[in-house]
Amino acid sequence: MPVYHAPLREFRFLYKDVLGVERYANMQGFENASLDLIEQILAEGAKFATETLLPLNHAGDVEGCLWSPDGVKTPSGFREAYKTMVEGGWPALSSDPAFGGQGLPHVVNVAFNEMVTSTNMAFGMYPGLTHGAYSAIHVGGTEEQKRTYLPKMVSFEWAGTMNLTEPHCGTDLGLLRTKAVPQPDGSYKITGQKIWISGGEQDLTENIIHLVLARIEGAPAGVKGISLFIVPKYLVNPDGSLGARNNAFCVGLEEKMGIHGNATCVMQYEEATGYLIGEANKGLNLMFVMMNEARLGVGLQGLGMSEVAYQNAVAFAKDRRQGRSLTGPKEPDQPADSIIAHPDVRRMLMDAKCFNEGARAFLFWTALYGDLLHNSPDEKVREKAGDYMALMTPVLKAFLTGEGFRHISDAMQVHGGSGFTEHFPASQFLRDSRIAMIYEGTNGVQALDLVGRKLAANGGRAIFSFFNEIDAFIADHEGEAQMAPFIEGLKSAKGQLQEGTMWLMQNGMQNFDNAGAASHDYLQLFGLTALSYMWALMAKAALANKGADPFYDNKIVTGRYFLDRRLPEASAHLAKLKTGAEAMMALPVEAF
Amino acid sequence: MPVYHAPLREFRFLYKDVLGVERYANMQGFENASLDLIEQILAEGAKFATETLLPLNHAGDVEGCLWSPDGVKTPSGFREAYKTMVEGGWPALSSDPAFGGQGLPHVVNVAFNEMVTSTNMAFGMYPGLTHGAYSAIHVGGTEEQKRTYLPKMVSFEWAGTMNLTEPHCGTDLGLLRTKAVPQPDGSYKITGQKIWISGGEQDLTENIIHLVLARIEGAPAGVKGISLFIVPKYLVNPDGSLGARNNAFCVGLEEKMGIHGNATCVMQYEEATGYLIGEANKGLNLMFVMMNEARLGVGLQGLGMSEVAYQNAVAFAKDRRQGRSLTGPKEPDQPADSIIAHPDVRRMLMDAKCFNEGARAFLFWTALYGDLLHNSPDEKVREKAGDYMALMTPVLKAFLTGEGFRHISDAMQVHGGSGFTEHFPASQFLRDSRIAMIYEGTNGVQALDLVGRKLAANGGRAIFSFFNEIDAFIADHEGEAQMAPFIEGLKSAKGQLQEGTMWLMQNGMQNFDNAGAASHDYLQLFGLTALSYMWALMAKAALANKGADPFYDNKIVTGRYFLDRRLPEASAHLAKLKTGAEAMMALPVEAF
Repeated sequence: MPVYHAPLREFRFLYKDVLGVERYANMQGFENASLDLIEQILAEGAKFATETLLPLNHAGDVEGCLWSPDGVKTPSGFREAYKTMVEGGWPALSSDPAFGGQGLPHVVNVAFNEMVTSTNMAFGMYPGLTHGAYSAIHVGGTEEQKRTYLPKMVSFEWAGTMNLTEPHCGTDLGLLRTKAVPQPDGSYKITGQKIWISGGEQDLTENIIHLVLARIEGAPAGVKGISLFIVPKYLVNPDGSLGARNNAFCVGLEEKMGIHGNATCVMQYEEATGYLIGEANKGLNLMFVMMNEARLGVGLQGLGMSEVAYQNAVAFAKDRRQGRSLTGPKEPDQPADSIIAHPDVRRMLMDAKCFNEGARAFLFWTALYGDLLHNSPDEKVREKAGDYMALMTPVLKAFLTGEGFRHISDAMQVHGGSGFTEHFPASQFLRDSRIAMIYEGTNGVQALDLVGRKLAANGGRAIFSFFNEIDAFIADHEGEAQMAPFIEGLKSAKGQLQEGTMWLMQNGMQNFDNAGAASHDYLQLFGLTALSYMWALMAKAALANKGADPFYDNKIVTGRYFLDRRLPEASAHLAKLKTGAEAMMALPVEAF
Repeated sequence: MPVYHAPLREFRFLYKDVLGVERYANMQGFENASLDLIEQILAEGAKFATETLLPLNHAGDVEGCLWSPDGVKTPSGFREAYKTMVEGGWPALSSDPAFGGQGLPHVVNVAFNEMVTSTNMAFGMYPGLTHGAYSAIHVGGTEEQKRTYLPKMVSFEWAGTMNLTEPHCGTDLGLLRTKAVPQPDGSYKITGQKIWISGGEQDLTENIIHLVLARIEGAPAGVKGISLFIVPKYLVNPDGSLGARNNAFCVGLEEKMGIHGNATCVMQYEEATGYLIGEANKGLNLMFVMMNEARLGVGLQGLGMSEVAYQNAVAFAKDRRQGRSLTGPKEPDQPADSIIAHPDVRRMLMDAKCFNEGARAFLFWTALYGDLLHNSPDEKVREKAGDYMALMTPVLKAFLTGEGFRHISDAMQVHGGSGFTEHFPASQFLRDSRIAMIYEGTNGVQALDLVGRKLAANGGRAIFSFFNEIDAFIADHEGEAQMAPFIEGLKSAKGQLQEGTMWLMQNGMQNFDNAGAASHDYLQLFGLTALSYMWALMAKAALANKGADPFYDNKIVTGRYFLDRRLPEASAHLAKLKTGAEAMMALPVEAF
């Protein structure tokens, strides 16, 4: 079984010392969420994750999901674990109390979700997607739709799914063909095939609420003719009981490299009954409510998997003895030193550690803006929060999954040959986590979203707001001796990001290929800058508490490592992006 | 079935235009290897690889190897393919004619081996390790041992294996426990367990010659008491026929993330009959003959897998249509453009392409030094060749496998969601290739070998010789307008590598942890510098032939992309390595 220790101490540090969530005690969602209560909830959540989900992780990988014409069987133990989860009310932490949720802040929910991902990513996807479907209905559904579907989705007795991809179209949704034919009763008949539908069928819930993109007969071509439909597996009677089985069936499962415990379904809709949600032909807007939430969730997977992979690499590195420290035996009474004594092993562990802690801060910081967006009484704060959520979503999704994968691969490397065998969990972590760079919009699509849409929105208001916030922080702390390396690092990162932004504004508009060519490195530079800011915030909090607990001294060391060993990559990304599209696009297609 | 086109045109470019192998027509090994003949042989080799090995690649992954007490069954088709290979004499290309080999240059053999790896890495490991065992016996065996084992190993009727690792020791061979008890007849009884033995048992050959590291009773502790033994699966009678079954059995197979077609065996030796090869207690020296060859072979796997992954990503990118080019439709008569029109897809393909071509040049250039080492009549040339082989081996092993994996992961990314399914070969490439960063000495061990041994050997003679060669090339071509970007790039890379080398000399000696902490980034910087030199050599060759064939123009474009998009990483590596060990080693072990 993999090792896992829930990072509760890290959570407390972020809530209390870095984000100061107690400041928001008067805000909706926070009024009943004292720090003590949050800690209590998360300690219970940690128990659920480590005691219930972790033991199922490896078996879920080996056993996988089983398809038959009657449905899909999830791996042994998943049903019981799901039941335990529902009974504990876990996935409803931050859902709307009007429909049975607990109404806690998002920033609490992300910590719980991190633990679920770390202990069982494949399992966690079932409730994860349900929460996304809940949000789409919550935002765009009619009162009746909300009343019909949300209570059972908040309790997770029913699941939700997200149906976009068709065999010939994934990223380019404008090509989609699934059709919706209006019926006299106001419903639609939905016909088409959707692929890669996570949890499209399973044996965990009594009903599944599919959210399906389709084109109403006669609708315009392209993305402007796409509508969103609620297509329940079982139709729901007016009294709330389950009615007829809808003609929405899983006709097969994908064989995948990882996340075997999650059913990736081919869904066949044959004149299935569907109900329009939101406006006709504007289905993408609503799907993006779900998609944006899913993207943050995928970014979280990058962190959660990197964290658990790191923890297992640490356990191995402390246990495995090979060779001697270069500076003389560390454990002379043993036949060899633990490999954690070797600098190159440390390098891989510290790379992961400084990433995980920075990424977690970045996620929590953004999640707090998610709470402010919904609940702040101050319109200016809500505007800034909305700007930040839009701007940071592609960065969190792509940077955290891409960098996370790098550390997950390093965690295998720390294991040496053992890591490549299936006796250790490193292989499963690598195989499971690799999808996160791909789904919910590939990381390349995120980068394009960042440079093509998010930067330019409202005349660049979001990015300038971010720059101003960083500048203000620098001004506040410049000259503080102990903060100096962090301020210097942040200044350098921000300066380079600004330079990259200017380059994009000057060169990306006149030749869009320049923007596309720069997008990946720009996003990486953005991620490094965001982490520099997070490390500066964390250093400030740690310095304020220095001496109280070795935790704070160690935090400073880890932050200094980030400055030494990760930040130098920023200049390489800037140099690359400024070379533009020329050499990248020059080769004729037939020369590949 | 995966796509594969043997890069015969690339081979020709390297042999003819870049390395000018015709210069060596008078040298042993080359006298019968005209360019025409080499091309003919490799064209036939390409046929063997694509027609015989490629169709077995996926099935080998799915079916894997099957263990029973009677032995190991390799995947369907492997036996027949092996037979075809033996009949074709393929693996004997560069073996000693005295034992039935063809005596062709190594630089020809690497091209063949690249094709074998690309089409079936798991299969290619069987003959690959046999060749390594052949080399060890060829260098260190008595005349009788050579006569007994080599002819059948050169013909590949018998296989060879390499037995180092034991459950408690891999990298740290000083800990090994397998013991050897001298017998009155001069043989030894070998007892112990060895793990991760590739091809330790199989159904391809009539005999398997295990080369086993063990400690002779009473030998000193540590690496100075290790000897190497020949332990045949079947003892060989004086007349060359097979005798008694030796007590050397495979007791199980590892479950692994990839290379399922190759049997990774747990070998149990119970008083098995073994014959000392080379001097007692100096077994590591001889094992390193095999190991160094294996390391170059593993570097080659990095390239071969990156090449085939790239080719399949290209095929997908040309076929899959999603969205429109940012600069307007490229194929307006189609519903969408091929995704190769998108800059970020190009980025991943160009990253791989410029790496593959540079890495191949680096490997072939080094292999040619391997030929010069053995066959040059000039002692100075042989000395330089020996220096280079020692210096470049860890770089080729680690840089090519680490960077190769990055491009193999990108190749999956180009596929989007399809890449994560097992319907496309991207997953198998990723899973198979990941081991290359680990086995034959992890990449971290390679980096330590580079900074700890190879740099300092003979007062730094090898690295200074490399710097001088680069300086001479720069002096020769400075001022040539078309060469300018390549000369500038090479100058910058070499300058940074020199700075890193100086830093190591000043800081690594006074604190060995500084050397360890810098080793990974130093090796990366070395690899980038070597590729800069290769691209300068290739640019020179391409410019000399410009206009003769679009191939040469494309080569320049790809080289320019390398300068734009890969070389900027050099400065990040230099900056990182110069931060030394402080922050890396500061955290107390319990803080991880």
